Amino acid sequence: MVQNVVLSNTDYKVVGTRPIRHDGTDKVTGRAKYGADFESSGMLYAKVLRSPHAHARIKSIDASRALALSGVRAVITAEDMPVDNAASRKVLARDKALYKGHPVAAVAATSAHIAENALALINVDYEVLTAATEVRDAMREDAPLIQEEQTTNELGETTDKHSNIATHFRYEQGDLDQGFAAADVIVEREFNTATVHQGYIEPQNGAAMWNADGNLTIWTSTQGAFVVRDALAGVLDMPVSRIKVVPMEIGGGFGGKIPIYLEPLTALLSKKTGASVKSAMTRAEVFEATGPTSGSYMKVKMGADNSGKIVAAEAYLAFDAGAFPGSPVTAGAQCAFACYEIENARVDGYDVVVNKPAVAAYRAPGAPIAAFACETVVDELAGKLGIDPIEFRARNASKEGTRRVDGPVFPRIGNIECLEAARDSDHYKSRLEGPNRGRGVASGFWFNIGLASSASIGVNADGTITLVEGSTDIGGTRASIAMQAAEVLGIAAEDVHPSVGDTDSVGYTFLTGGSRTTFATGWAAYECAQDIKNKMIDRAATIWEVDKADVDLVDGVFQHQSDPDLKMTFKELSGRLAGSGGPISSQVSVDPRGAGGAFATHIVDVEVDPETGKVDILNYTAVQDAGKAIHPSYVEGQIQGGVVQGIGWALNEEYFMDREGRMANSSFLDYRMPTSLDLPMIGTVIVEVANPGHPYGVRGVGEVPIVPPMAAVANAIHDAVGVRMDQLPMSPGAVLDAVLEKNGS
Amino acid sequence: MVQNVVLSNTDYKVVGTRPIRHDGTDKVTGRAKYGADFESSGMLYAKVLRSPHAHARIKSIDASRALALSGVRAVITAEDMPVDNAASRKVLARDKALYKGHPVAAVAATSAHIAENALALINVDYEVLTAATEVRDAMREDAPLIQEEQTTNELGETTDKHSNIATHFRYEQGDLDQGFAAADVIVEREFNTATVHQGYIEPQNGAAMWNADGNLTIWTSTQGAFVVRDALAGVLDMPVSRIKVVPMEIGGGFGGKIPIYLEPLTALLSKKTGASVKSAMTRAEVFEATGPTSGSYMKVKMGADNSGKIVAAEAYLAFDAGAFPGSPVTAGAQCAFACYEIENARVDGYDVVVNKPAVAAYRAPGAPIAAFACETVVDELAGKLGIDPIEFRARNASKEGTRRVDGPVFPRIGNIECLEAARDSDHYKSRLEGPNRGRGVASGFWFNIGLASSASIGVNADGTITLVEGSTDIGGTRASIAMQAAEVLGIAAEDVHPSVGDTDSVGYTFLTGGSRTTFATGWAAYECAQDIKNKMIDRAATIWEVDKADVDLVDGVFQHQSDPDLKMTFKELSGRLAGSGGPISSQVSVDPRGAGGAFATHIVDVEVDPETGKVDILNYTAVQDAGKAIHPSYVEGQIQGGVVQGIGWALNEEYFMDREGRMANSSFLDYRMPTSLDLPMIGTVIVEVANPGHPYGVRGVGEVPIVPPMAAVANAIHDAVGVRMDQLPMSPGAVLDAVLEKNGS
Repeated sequence: MVQNVVLSNTDYKVVGTRPIRHDGTDKVTGRAKYGADFESSGMLYAKVLRSPHAHARIKSIDASRALALSGVRAVITAEDMPVDNAASRKVLARDKALYKGHPVAAVAATSAHIAENALALINVDYEVLTAATEVRDAMREDAPLIQEEQTTNELGETTDKHSNIATHFRYEQGDLDQGFAAADVIVEREFNTATVHQGYIEPQNGAAMWNADGNLTIWTSTQGAFVVRDALAGVLDMPVSRIKVVPMEIGGGFGGKIPIYLEPLTALLSKKTGASVKSAMTRAEVFEATGPTSGSYMKVKMGADNSGKIVAAEAYLAFDAGAFPGSPVTAGAQCAFACYEIENARVDGYDVVVNKPAVAAYRAPGAPIAAFACETVVDELAGKLGIDPIEFRARNASKEGTRRVDGPVFPRIGNIECLEAARDSDHYKSRLEGPNRGRGVASGFWFNIGLASSASIGVNADGTITLVEGSTDIGGTRASIAMQAAEVLGIAAEDVHPSVGDTDSVGYTFLTGGSRTTFATGWAAYECAQDIKNKMIDRAATIWEVDKADVDLVDGVFQHQSDPDLKMTFKELSGRLAGSGGPISSQVSVDPRGAGGAFATHIVDVEVDPETGKVDILNYTAVQDAGKAIHPSYVEGQIQGGVVQGIGWALNEEYFMDREGRMANSSFLDYRMPTSLDLPMIGTVIVEVANPGHPYGVRGVGEVPIVPPMAAVANAIHDAVGVRMDQLPMSPGAVLDAVLEKNGS
Repeated sequence: MVQNVVLSNTDYKVVGTRPIRHDGTDKVTGRAKYGADFESSGMLYAKVLRSPHAHARIKSIDASRALALSGVRAVITAEDMPVDNAASRKVLARDKALYKGHPVAAVAATSAHIAENALALINVDYEVLTAATEVRDAMREDAPLIQEEQTTNELGETTDKHSNIATHFRYEQGDLDQGFAAADVIVEREFNTATVHQGYIEPQNGAAMWNADGNLTIWTSTQGAFVVRDALAGVLDMPVSRIKVVPMEIGGGFGGKIPIYLEPLTALLSKKTGASVKSAMTRAEVFEATGPTSGSYMKVKMGADNSGKIVAAEAYLAFDAGAFPGSPVTAGAQCAFACYEIENARVDGYDVVVNKPAVAAYRAPGAPIAAFACETVVDELAGKLGIDPIEFRARNASKEGTRRVDGPVFPRIGNIECLEAARDSDHYKSRLEGPNRGRGVASGFWFNIGLASSASIGVNADGTITLVEGSTDIGGTRASIAMQAAEVLGIAAEDVHPSVGDTDSVGYTFLTGGSRTTFATGWAAYECAQDIKNKMIDRAATIWEVDKADVDLVDGVFQHQSDPDLKMTFKELSGRLAGSGGPISSQVSVDPRGAGGAFATHIVDVEVDPETGKVDILNYTAVQDAGKAIHPSYVEGQIQGGVVQGIGWALNEEYFMDREGRMANSSFLDYRMPTSLDLPMIGTVIVEVANPGHPYGVRGVGEVPIVPPMAAVANAIHDAVGVRMDQLPMSPGAVLDAVLEKNGS
C-alpha cells in the first residue's frame, strides 16, 4: 500500500512509477557477476590464518613449513604491510591478536584447498591474554587493556591512565535538573543489547592483480569502489590513482561491505607472486571477522508532566567497538531523542574497545540500539500517563525548527505526518483480540547523508541513453537513479541503460550507504540529464536555425515556443545528432547538502507463548516518510527488509560468546535470522513530505526502517504479557524468564 | 630522427614528448585481455561452415546430423538472420556462396572440437557456378554474374543490363585534351596489383551473450565498439541500445577489424541456446574470409611540358570489391593525383565485384594502389625530362589553395615541406654505389577524417585524472589522447589514467581508423580537459573567495592574477576538492571538421639480384608531415609500420588464386610478410606543419606511410636495373621476367 500523505509535485511521468529493474534478468538468471565469480588465467587462491584466541600476544610466526608445501606461492604477515597503524592492524594483526578470527597471516596457493592446508602448517607462538568481550567488562578499571596505548578517561580527556574507553562525548541542552524537577512521571531503565551481524547473503571476497608497472586492480563486492580505493591507498601506502577498483555485483551489504578485509591481503600476495590472487570468506569467517554492530549497555531516564509533555531526557550509551575504536555510538546519540522536542536533554556516549571483531556500519548505525532503549522508555511514560502511545509521541514530536540535542535544527520533516498516518492506519484502528497478544508502537529517526556522487550520460541514436553511475547498486539504485534522469528528459525508465562504473571510468562517488545513493547520485543524474537536455535544446535550435531560448523540452518533445511546426521527439532528435554536430554526452559530479532526515513509526502486533517465551509477529505496519518515493516498490522493499532485520535483532540474533571470548554460533544454523516462513507480510505506508533539499524531494529510505522494530516489539510484548524487556535479543528464554519473574516464579 | 621543419608552437610541456605507454606493461606481460581471452561459465564455442566453392548456388542445407552430435547445441543458417540484405548476406550466404570461405552455417557446441567435427556433418547441396576472381575478367560482358541484381553500366548509370560493375564515377577538372596537347612528354602505362591482406597478428573473434531480457552483450576485438553496435543493430534488426559492445584489446586491425564477422553469428547462436557463445578464426579463415584489399587494374597517362610542369593527368582505376560492392576505389581516385597541382585531370573509378572475400579497409584504403601507378608514371616523366624526381615533384606540388580533382581545396598542408625535407635528408644527399643498386622516390597523400568522438575525465584526489575514451587503442592512442588532456591541465602524461570504454559507458565514438583518433578523440579529450580546467578554476576561486576571472592555470599551477599568495598546484587543488564542493568530472563529445590531409615522401635504396630477381631494401627514409607529433615515438612507429607493410605489398604479398577461384596460400608460411630479418631500420623524418583545424595542429599519421612504398620501390628497381615494374607484387619471378625481357632473353 502506498499512502501519499503530502506530495509536493504530482505530475511526474516516471518518478513514482514502478518499472521493471534494469538488472533483474541478470540476477534472476544467475548471470550477474559477483566478486567470487572473478576468474583470470594463472590465478592463485588465498586463505587467511586467523587467531584462535580472543586476545593474545603474537610472539613469533614461522611459515617455513607452509611455504614448503607444493602449490604454495607466498605467505604474508603484518611484516609485509607497508605501514603500521590502526588500519593496517585491522587488516593483519601485529604484535597482538585482538579477537578470535583476527587475521594473522595469509597464504596464496594454486588452489583454495592447498591454501587451506597450508594454514595448518604456519606455526604461530601465542601468549594468550585475558579477554574482555562485553562493554561493561571492558570499561572496568581492572579490565585487560586491548589497545594498550589508549588513554581516554570517562570525561573524554586524554590522561596517563590506560583504558579501553576510546571516546567519551556529551551532547547537552537546557537544564536537566530543572527538567526532571518539573516532571510528574519519571522512568529510568537500564538496557543491554547483544552484538549482531548484518547477515548479508554473499560472503566478503576480493581479487587483486598487482601489475609489474605498479598499478593495482581490485575486483570486489563492495558498497563503494572509491572508498575501497581510498582505504587501500592508505594501508598500501600508494596514491589512489595507482589503484583501480572494479565493483562486482554485491549480494547485500547493509554497511558491512564498506571496510576492506581481503582486498589488501590479496593485493600484497599478488605483489609477492606476480599472479592475480582471489579469496572469499566462509560464513564462519564472515561472522567472526567482519563487521557486526555493537553490543551495548545503556541507561535512559525520561520525565514528563501530566500534560503529556516530555520535560527532560537523559541517556548514557556505552557501545562496544569491537577491537578497534569506532562504534556507532555517535550516531546513536544523535538519533536517540531526535523524534522529540525536549528542552532539557543530555546524552553521554562511550566508544569502548573489546575483544571482538571491529564493528562495521550496520543500517542506520547505532540508531536502532539507542531507539530500543529510548522508545521503550517513551512507551512506558505514555502508559503511566494513560496517553495513547502515538498521541503521546505526536504531542512531543520534533518538527521544523526543533533543535536536536547534538545541535542541528530540523528543516521540514515528516515526523508528525508519519505519526498521523500510523494513527489513521487500518492496522492501528483495528482491534487486537486474544490472550497474550499485544500491540506496540515505536518511532525512529535517521539523518541520512549527502556527499559526493558522479553520473555520466550518453545519448544513443535510437533515443535511449546510457547512464554510468559511480554508486554500486545494492538495493535498486540503478533503477532509482535512471528514473531521475528519465524524468528530466521525458523518456521512459526503460530507455535508460544504467551501469556501475569502476574507479577509472566515472567521477568520484562516495559509497552506497547512509541512505545517500538515490538522494545524491540521483541528484548527479538529474544534473547530468539537465546538461544533456540543454545540449539537446541547443542542437534542436541549430537544426531549426532558431534561437535556443525559444526551444523547450515538454513531455519528451522538443518544441518551438511559437512555431508549432517545429517539433521533434527526444527520439527523433537523437537520431539526428550524427551529422548535425555529433553525439551528445555529459558527466557531472555533485556534493549536495540538504539530505533530508527520515522518520518512521511502526506498529506491531505480537503473540507471546507463555509456556516457551516465543514471540510471534502477527501483524506489522511500517509508516515512513520517503520525501518522494522514486520507485515505490523499492521503497517498500527497503522498509520491509529493514523491518525484518529489526525483528531478527529483536527476537533472535546475537553473538553467543564462550568464556574464552570466542563466538560459539558462527553459522546461519546457530545464528538465527528470520525468513519468510517466520513472518507475516510487512505492511508499508509511504508518507511523502518532500525534502526541500532535493529536486524531487527525495529523502534516504534504506536505513530508518530498522530503527523502530526492536522497541516496537518490546512494547508489544509489554502490552501482551506485561513485562518490560530490557535486553536484546528478546529470545524465548529471556522472555520466559521475564514472564516467570513477573509472575513471581 | 625527428626533424621539426615547421613548429607552430614549441612551448608544449607534454605534447611532443615520449612518455612510456600506459598499456605497455599489460601487453608485454601477456595480461592484456584480447577477444579470444573472454571466458564465461557455461560458454559454448562456435565454428563456421564455409563454402568450399568460389561461386555456387546453395540448393539445400541439412544440419540434422550435426544437431544429433553429442555436445552440439545449435546450428544457424541464413534462415536465422532476422533480415535479408547485403549486410546479412555478407554475414551468412543466402541462396549463393560468393567466395571460397563465405559462411554458410555456424555451429555452437560445448567445445571447439565438437563444433568443428559438427561442420563435417552439415550437408550442403551446392550447384557450382563459374567464378570470376580478377577484376578485368569480372568486367567482361560474358562474365558470370555475381550480384545478380546489379545493373550499373560503365557510365555509372542504372540500366537493365546486369553487370559486375557496382559503381562507375568520374572526377574531372580542366580540359584533358588541351592539357595533353600542351605536353612535351607523355607517359601512359597499365598496372595490375594483386589482392593483399592486412595481416594483423590476432585473428578475428567474437563472443556474445543474448540475455533473456533481450539485451545482447558482445565482446570482440574491434576498431570501433560503436560501429560494431551499429552494424549488429542492422543485421539483427534491433535498436542499438539493446546491444552493448565491450571492446577487448586488439592485436592489429589496419582497417580489417571494422566489419562484423563472428559477432552476429555468436549472437544468434547465443539467442538460440541461451548460453554465451565464443568463436575465433583460424589464420586460414582470416585470409579466406576477412577483408583483404582490392586487386586492381589501372591505366595512368600523364603529360608534362619541358619546363617540368605537369599539364594533364588521366587515370582509369578498376578495383575489385570482393563479393560485395565497396572497394576503396573512391578514396584511391581522390588521392591519386592529390600530391600535384594539375589543371587538367580526370579520374575514372570502377568498383567491381568478384568471387573473393568482400574487401575491407586497409590503411589509407585505395591510396597505395593508385599511388603505385601514378607515382611510377611521375617518376618516368621526371626521368624523361631529366629532372631530379624530388625537384620535379616540388615544382608541381599541391599546396594551400590547390583544388583536388574531386573538388576539395587544400588548406595549409605540408607537401612541399616534406619534399624539401626529403631533398635535404642525409639519405638523399648520400651517394648510392654498386651494381644493380638504385634509388627511388615517391610521394603519397591521405586525407584523414574527423567525425564523432567522446572522452570523459574525473579528477583524483592525488592530482591525477582518469580518462575514458570511446576509441579502441590500436596504435597507441591511449597515450596520444592522454597527453593532449595532460597538456591542458599542466600535469604529466603519467598522471593521466586512460581507459577504453564500452558502448554503455562513454559517449558515441566513431571507429579507430581514417587516422582520426589522435585528431578527433584527442580533440574530445582536449575539450574535456578545458572543461575540467574551468571547473578547477571555479573551485580555486571559491576556495580563495575571489572572482574566477582573476584565476589562471599556468604550468599546472592555479594562481591569482594579482595576489601572489594565492597559488595552488593542480595536485594541491585536487586534494581539496572534497569538502569544497565535491569532485570534478566531465564528459564531452565532439564532431570536428578540419582533419588535415597528410603528405609523405619516401626514399628507398634497393639492390636487385639479377640472377633471381630478389630485391633487397638497403636503406629507407620516410618523411611525413604529422602536423604535430603528439608522441613522436608512436608517429615514428606508425611510419615504420606503414612502410614495412608497403614493402611487403611491393615485393611479396599476394593472394594466389587457383583455377577454381580458391586462395592457395592461406597461411603465413605461404603468404609471406616481411619481418625484421628482411628489412633495415626504417628511417623517419617527422615534418610538422601544424594543421590549422586542430588545437595542437594534429594531422592523422597512421595511414599515409603505406601510400608511397610500392611506387618508391618500383622506381628504385628501375633506377637499379632499368625496368619499369607494372604489377604488384614485384616478386623475384616478376622482376626476373622483366629483367630478362629487357635484356632480350
